[in-house]
Amino acid sequence: MARLVVIYKTPKDPKAFDDYYFASHVPLAKKIPGLRRYEVSEGAVGSPVGASGVHLVATLHFDSVQAIQDSFRSPVGLAAAGDLVNFADGGADLYFFETRAV
Amino acid sequence: MARLVVIYKTPKDPKAFDDYYFASHVPLAKKIPGLRRYEVSEGAVGSPVGASGVHLVATLHFDSVQAIQDSFRSPVGLAAAGDLVNFADGGADLYFFETRAV
Repeated sequence: MARLVVIYKTPKDPKAFDDYYFASHVPLAKKIPGLRRYEVSEGAVGSPVGASGVHLVATLHFDSVQAIQDSFRSPVGLAAAGDLVNFADGGADLYFFETRAV
Repeated sequence: MARLVVIYKTPKDPKAFDDYYFASHVPLAKKIPGLRRYEVSEGAVGSPVGASGVHLVATLHFDSVQAIQDSFRSPVGLAAAGDLVNFADGGADLYFFETRAV
């Protein structure tokens, strides 16, 4: 199994971010080929040292890193990546990796 | 369900990090009260823009954010947090949040 984690930093207008994210971005991103599960943080994203500066964390599940890399090159994946500029004005960090339980 | 995500930036000596992490930190952290599942990234942590600067991502599953906050105050949680200075010399970002599927 593999994960794509997207860490959205706090945007200028969190309400506008949420409206766009759930009405437009999620429905688009759910069509990404190879996506097995899509999870989002709910409520505040905390940090042990206080304010995290993060508004939302999305975790997308795929079968492998290869599947994630393939998805980036698909038309829907390209559209989803290109959609970030429409709402993620606080910036976003994207990380992908194979994962296993310990 | 809730998650604690720990993003370890690339340390000075990745081999020494891995040795300590899996031999000492994981066995300690697995004793944290309320921990339901512990996942780690395997192999490289990628980014769409090239090198991620991240060495390892750990995802710890708990029942709730309250359980995570309680765990931070437990003796084992405090010991696990205090253990970071023994290997995470590249720094680490910790985020916790409730999560749901969309």
